[in-house]
Amino acid sequence: MSSEENRARAPSGIAARKGDHLDIVLSASQSGARLPTGFEAVQFEHCALPELDFDKIDLSQDFLGRTLAAPLLISSMTGGPERAGRINHHLAEAAETLKIAFAVGSQRIAIEGHASCGLGKSLRRTAPSVPILANIGAAQLVAGYGVPEALRAIEMIEADGLIIHLNPLQEAVQTGGDRRWRGVLEAIAALRRELPVPLIVKEVGAGISGRVARRLTEIGVSIIDVAGAGGTSWAAVEAERAPDERRRDIAARFSDWGIPTAAAIREVREFCPDAFIIGSGGVRDGLDAAKALRLGADLVGQAASGLASAEQSAEAAIDHFSAVIEELRIACFCTGSKDLAALRQAPLLPSPASAAAPSLP
Amino acid sequence: MSSEENRARAPSGIAARKGDHLDIVLSASQSGARLPTGFEAVQFEHCALPELDFDKIDLSQDFLGRTLAAPLLISSMTGGPERAGRINHHLAEAAETLKIAFAVGSQRIAIEGHASCGLGKSLRRTAPSVPILANIGAAQLVAGYGVPEALRAIEMIEADGLIIHLNPLQEAVQTGGDRRWRGVLEAIAALRRELPVPLIVKEVGAGISGRVARRLTEIGVSIIDVAGAGGTSWAAVEAERAPDERRRDIAARFSDWGIPTAAAIREVREFCPDAFIIGSGGVRDGLDAAKALRLGADLVGQAASGLASAEQSAEAAIDHFSAVIEELRIACFCTGSKDLAALRQAPLLPSPASAAAPSLP
Amino acid sequence: MSSEENRARAPSGIAARKGDHLDIVLSASQSGARLPTGFEAVQFEHCALPELDFDKIDLSQDFLGRTLAAPLLISSMTGGPERAGRINHHLAEAAETLKIAFAVGSQRIAIEGHASCGLGKSLRRTAPSVPILANIGAAQLVAGYGVPEALRAIEMIEADGLIIHLNPLQEAVQTGGDRRWRGVLEAIAALRRELPVPLIVKEVGAGISGRVARRLTEIGVSIIDVAGAGGTSWAAVEAERAPDERRRDIAARFSDWGIPTAAAIREVREFCPDAFIIGSGGVRDGLDAAKALRLGADLVGQAASGLASAEQSAEAAIDHFSAVIEELRIACFCTGSKDLAALRQAPLLPSPASAAAPSLP
Amino acid sequence: MSSEENRARAPSGIAARKGDHLDIVLSASQSGARLPTGFEAVQFEHCALPELDFDKIDLSQDFLGRTLAAPLLISSMTGGPERAGRINHHLAEAAETLKIAFAVGSQRIAIEGHASCGLGKSLRRTAPSVPILANIGAAQLVAGYGVPEALRAIEMIEADGLIIHLNPLQEAVQTGGDRRWRGVLEAIAALRRELPVPLIVKEVGAGISGRVARRLTEIGVSIIDVAGAGGTSWAAVEAERAPDERRRDIAARFSDWGIPTAAAIREVREFCPDAFIIGSGGVRDGLDAAKALRLGADLVGQAASGLASAEQSAEAAIDHFSAVIEELRIACFCTGSKDLAALRQAPLLPSPASAAAPSLP
Ligand SMILES: Cc1cc2nc3c(=O)[nH]c(=O)nc-3n(C[C@H](O)[C@H](O)[C@H](O)COP(=O)(O)O)c2cc1C
Ligand SMILES: Cc1cc2nc3c(=O)[nH]c(=O)nc-3n(C[C@H](O)[C@H](O)[C@H](O)COP(=O)(O)O)c2cc1C
Ligand SMILES: Cc1cc2nc3c(=O)[nH]c(=O)nc-3n(C[C@H](O)[C@H](O)[C@H](O)COP(=O)(O)O)c2cc1C
Ligand SMILES: Cc1cc2nc3c(=O)[nH]c(=O)nc-3n(C[C@H](O)[C@H](O)[C@H](O)COP(=O)(O)O)c2cc1C
Repeated sequence: MSSEENRARAPSGIAARKGDHLDIVLSASQSGARLPTGFEAVQFEHCALPELDFDKIDLSQDFLGRTLAAPLLISSMTGGPERAGRINHHLAEAAETLKIAFAVGSQRIAIEGHASCGLGKSLRRTAPSVPILANIGAAQLVAGYGVPEALRAIEMIEADGLIIHLNPLQEAVQTGGDRRWRGVLEAIAALRRELPVPLIVKEVGAGISGRVARRLTEIGVSIIDVAGAGGTSWAAVEAERAPDERRRDIAARFSDWGIPTAAAIREVREFCPDAFIIGSGGVRDGLDAAKALRLGADLVGQAASGLASAEQSAEAAIDHFSAVIEELRIACFCTGSKDLAALRQAPLLPSPASAAAPSLP
Repeated sequence: MSSEENRARAPSGIAARKGDHLDIVLSASQSGARLPTGFEAVQFEHCALPELDFDKIDLSQDFLGRTLAAPLLISSMTGGPERAGRINHHLAEAAETLKIAFAVGSQRIAIEGHASCGLGKSLRRTAPSVPILANIGAAQLVAGYGVPEALRAIEMIEADGLIIHLNPLQEAVQTGGDRRWRGVLEAIAALRRELPVPLIVKEVGAGISGRVARRLTEIGVSIIDVAGAGGTSWAAVEAERAPDERRRDIAARFSDWGIPTAAAIREVREFCPDAFIIGSGGVRDGLDAAKALRLGADLVGQAASGLASAEQSAEAAIDHFSAVIEELRIACFCTGSKDLAALRQAPLLPSPASAAAPSLP
Repeated sequence: MSSEENRARAPSGIAARKGDHLDIVLSASQSGARLPTGFEAVQFEHCALPELDFDKIDLSQDFLGRTLAAPLLISSMTGGPERAGRINHHLAEAAETLKIAFAVGSQRIAIEGHASCGLGKSLRRTAPSVPILANIGAAQLVAGYGVPEALRAIEMIEADGLIIHLNPLQEAVQTGGDRRWRGVLEAIAALRRELPVPLIVKEVGAGISGRVARRLTEIGVSIIDVAGAGGTSWAAVEAERAPDERRRDIAARFSDWGIPTAAAIREVREFCPDAFIIGSGGVRDGLDAAKALRLGADLVGQAASGLASAEQSAEAAIDHFSAVIEELRIACFCTGSKDLAALRQAPLLPSPASAAAPSLP
Repeated sequence: MSSEENRARAPSGIAARKGDHLDIVLSASQSGARLPTGFEAVQFEHCALPELDFDKIDLSQDFLGRTLAAPLLISSMTGGPERAGRINHHLAEAAETLKIAFAVGSQRIAIEGHASCGLGKSLRRTAPSVPILANIGAAQLVAGYGVPEALRAIEMIEADGLIIHLNPLQEAVQTGGDRRWRGVLEAIAALRRELPVPLIVKEVGAGISGRVARRLTEIGVSIIDVAGAGGTSWAAVEAERAPDERRRDIAARFSDWGIPTAAAIREVREFCPDAFIIGSGGVRDGLDAAKALRLGADLVGQAASGLASAEQSAEAAIDHFSAVIEELRIACFCTGSKDLAALRQAPLLPSPASAAAPSLP
């Protein structure tokens, strides 16, 4: 498919698809069963003597030249029109209020259609002081996108950085997905050399391995969002949307696929000691966020768990993300960590498996 | 029992038994509970940057002098008349369409009766270009079968190879089963020396161990189908068919018996580095198939999971097995494997057990 | 309590208690939940090429100067009158028919009362050719029993050996239990020196440890029945019989107490390489029996699982125990073991835990 | 908040809160789900030959210059008026009857209010011969409390020692909790130097780590009550009491937080070989108590499990705690331990995990 054909096919179908996604994720988040993120197995050692004043714990974190009040990123969810626009504005308001970072979802519709899809300057006016991130898909880069489209995505919202999302599994199980991925790495490298803002590369719920992270850092991408397994499973979402039983079954087989978030964070940190790592994928609360930081993340991203509040109102979104921050602060307090650097050194409990076997005389 | 008596006893009773088998397996495959195959514990590391075009992934595999489009074998299920004949023709059509290998079930009725039981030349005409495998039981070899019967099985369907199935557990728990197994190995060795086509030795769901595989390769059998535990349990099937409660209970005690497929593949590969290994037993889908290949199989066999579609129509069977192939292709794509050789090197996730114990500083 | 007082207190109360025991065990065996014996974690490696004739597998085992057709002991259950007498006669008939060993339950009532409680010569007449074992409690030995009582127990049934059962937990949680256990070991040693038949020491479901076994072999007891945890729990049984809630709760706390049978067998074998070990406690079937032998037992005992059949009729008991033997034979067949010596060397599967972690390149 | 403000805010609100606590804990103890204490994984090796007279087992333990008949402490629960006073008197009567130690709950209301809250001399008169422990919160020490308040707490009940409880998690999740904890350690050190009685430092259900214990012993605190996780979870209790959904959710996230009691005991013993350790947190019965002693505790504390009986009557409390002692005695009997020193050396079973993997030839 040429880049022209691709664009022709896009807008209306994509918008419907994105609406489906929101509905499926919102209803799924009600139900319980999920893959493990690996955070379940990480337990902090309680510190009964914190020697801290709770309110003075310092959660600040620098990101893209700005200082966040807490190491949080509202991860990419939507870039579509109307409903999506409303969600984005609620999230932007929450981000500004709480001084945390914010990423929009894929801007493909906005780039290819000619409406701004709620992704105009008003978003930036709502959140003038925090990092805002633009978002496009890696498959687009080999299907015709280049520097002009990337710049358009960035300028549309005056973004501080551009996220490229890698979603090969989603494309593979989705009817009509982009299954040509040869050349993606080179296209990212080319883009990086030309762009005026930093590039962030992320997955969408199947995780970035240490090996993939190393290939990314080798071409100069230094910010990596693992977006691991244990949260939203795109294979499961696409299974719900499948046009027939056969395709639904195929997609469903892969609902377990992916690198659990905790493992992804640790591996990327191990392979790329100097990368700036965003830990995301199934982060439910501030305790998971604390664990992500402990395992090696510099910033923690959350998407699906915040969606319901964002659909409701800016106040609900603020309530939600401020609770995440409060929980993170409690985790610092109860590990005696005065700041994030201390939290990253906080002792952990031995894993249940080894604790089960007391090696007594 | 002499070979004459044996033949006398056979045809009609066997046909009824084989019909029971189909019914029990078909109804069981609806229900859920099964032994683990060991595939559950094997997880691929996701590759977010495949650098591949999905449609160009090469799944081809040579087998018995022919090239398969995918490394799949439709495993032996039935050799009986009518219903079984219909099933076999649907499977043969699927095999031919998808260019995968196909094995008929035990040909004992056809050999001993005088009807072809649907196993005549029409099967080969339906599937002219793919490997077709004949099938007889090892216990028959010490109960009177020899080279003539084996040749008859092969010629009847113009087979490319002959499968000898080992099923001591099934015979032990089945009323009137063949329980004399002294001399089986020597009989196989003798047969191998005389036959014009290659010999394949398989189990039927309890697995071939590394030790047994070594004894087989020592007598010159170089193609081994592990047919391990985790799929169809013949002890469970025979328990359903048992004539009284006592025999049913005895059979049921052994429904857990057997070497899980994943363990069997790994062990046979370890003991017999040069054997051609068919990984089968509880392979549900193309993701299991990918794991079997990763663990050391050269080809992957599937029986029970495809039975329902084969009973329905050739189209349903094609749908089923093409989905298996599509899933295998997705597994290659999402591990960044351009062909089966690459898939066999694809990184795995550490097991959940070890992942549960982060060894952090 | 002097031996006189002790005797005075005994007969009628004991008889009622023993009836309770039968009822509770019979109803419990219907329900499912039980402690693990450790046999669950032991899995034989299947041998697809047995090279054996099923009917020629040799299960014979010498015990107390007689040769058993299979390495089985019907463990001590009852020594009481009427109902118990009937059970014992059914069991004796089964033992004689199948040529396996048989032990009566505690003979305290018969010794202290003046009726034979069905434990007269007729039992020996029913089972003239197999080992019959007498049974008394260890606590009795310090509460007044000595050589005369032991001889009476043996002679009453012309026993080939005398079992002393150790049941400190049962006595501790039972209202009015014998809680004075100082001097038991010395009393056993004294008895052993005087008796005309071999002494067997057993537990009743909490297991004999390697340490206890060593103390027993040091005083010359060379036959040890581990009677481990995972089958009948006497704390649970006594909880059901407790006179008030407080005592019931106390007993119930200990329903998990004990050394699982598989662990007990392995430890006693390790500590006492030359002892004759009876593996018992929660043996449900011939497959468990095979595992007990594989772990180090010379003979396998079964009590509770056979009780329902024994209450019914001799035929039912024969049916039950012959099924156990058939299952043991199938286990030999499917591991390629021509006799018990071979079974004791049969390869096992790696444990699920380690199998879960494939250490692939 | 100054110490004056703090006192002003206190009495009536605290009293209501404490009543809530009792109700929530009482209703929760009915329901089942709880975190593991780690005791589940500790199993004693049964000793079938105790060589002991049950009634002569010596459970005595010295504590604060008095000799207890059993190594038990009724842990701090309540210091409030009326209902709480009744509970305390029942507990004091049970402690006196059974010769075990007894601690009152936080005396903040009594100190700050001007009523004795049932914590007057009558408590000491009820329990003249056993250690009674006073109780204040660590957060109070930096919010204005000093030696005078501590002395008042001690004198009010003629206590043999003063407990300082550390509860940073509870304060963090509780509306209006004391979140200023800088200076706590120094305040404890200062208090210790001035007080006429020994100081005990404890948690309230989240556990003391080895590191925290070492900091305490370094300032001269030599009695440490681990009060680990697996029993009462104060985060869960505060979640039930939360004024709104957001605060309830935040508290609930931490209901799993804490060091399991078994791990805490072992770690504190390892870090502080010479400390006097009280093992508490989720101790349900005398078997858990035996395990706590085996893992390194000198004394065992129990709070929630005894609360229902204490609310009822002194007799019910005596019944409850005497059952705990009886169970501890049975554990000694069935491990062949003549006293607590022997129990501390009693062999344990290998953990299920390692037992699952027989390493047989
Ligand atoms: C409704 C929804 C839409 C999403 N759309 C995008 C997207 O357009 N671009 C993108 O990079 N990621 C997208 N994601 C992925 C998230 O950014 C995130 O990486 C992933 O969901 C894992 O985080 P979570 O488990 O917190 O949801 C989307 C997620 C959700 C739930
Ligand atoms: C209905 C049915 C009939 C079978 N009949 C035969 C047979 O005749 N000969 C044989 O070698 N295997 C036979 N098998 C065994 C299969 O070939 C295969 O080895 C086994 O079922 C494990 O694969 P699965 O788990 O995919 O079913 C049969 C299996 C099924 C389900
Ligand atoms: C109803 C019943 C009564 C028993 N009575 C005795 C007894 O009198 N003497 C004895 O040594 N063991 C007695 N036992 C214990 C058994 O001999 C055996 O050691 C124990 O039950 C464990 O085996 P099982 O799990 O197969 O029942 C009795 C067991 C049962 C079930
Ligand atoms: C109702 C209740 C009230 C408590 N109040 C106090 C208290 O005032 N001071 C204190 O140090 N601990 C208090 N605790 C904590 C207990 O002393 C104990 O450390 C903790 O509950 C763990 O033990 P458990 O699991 O046996 O309940 C209280 C516990 C309960 C259940």
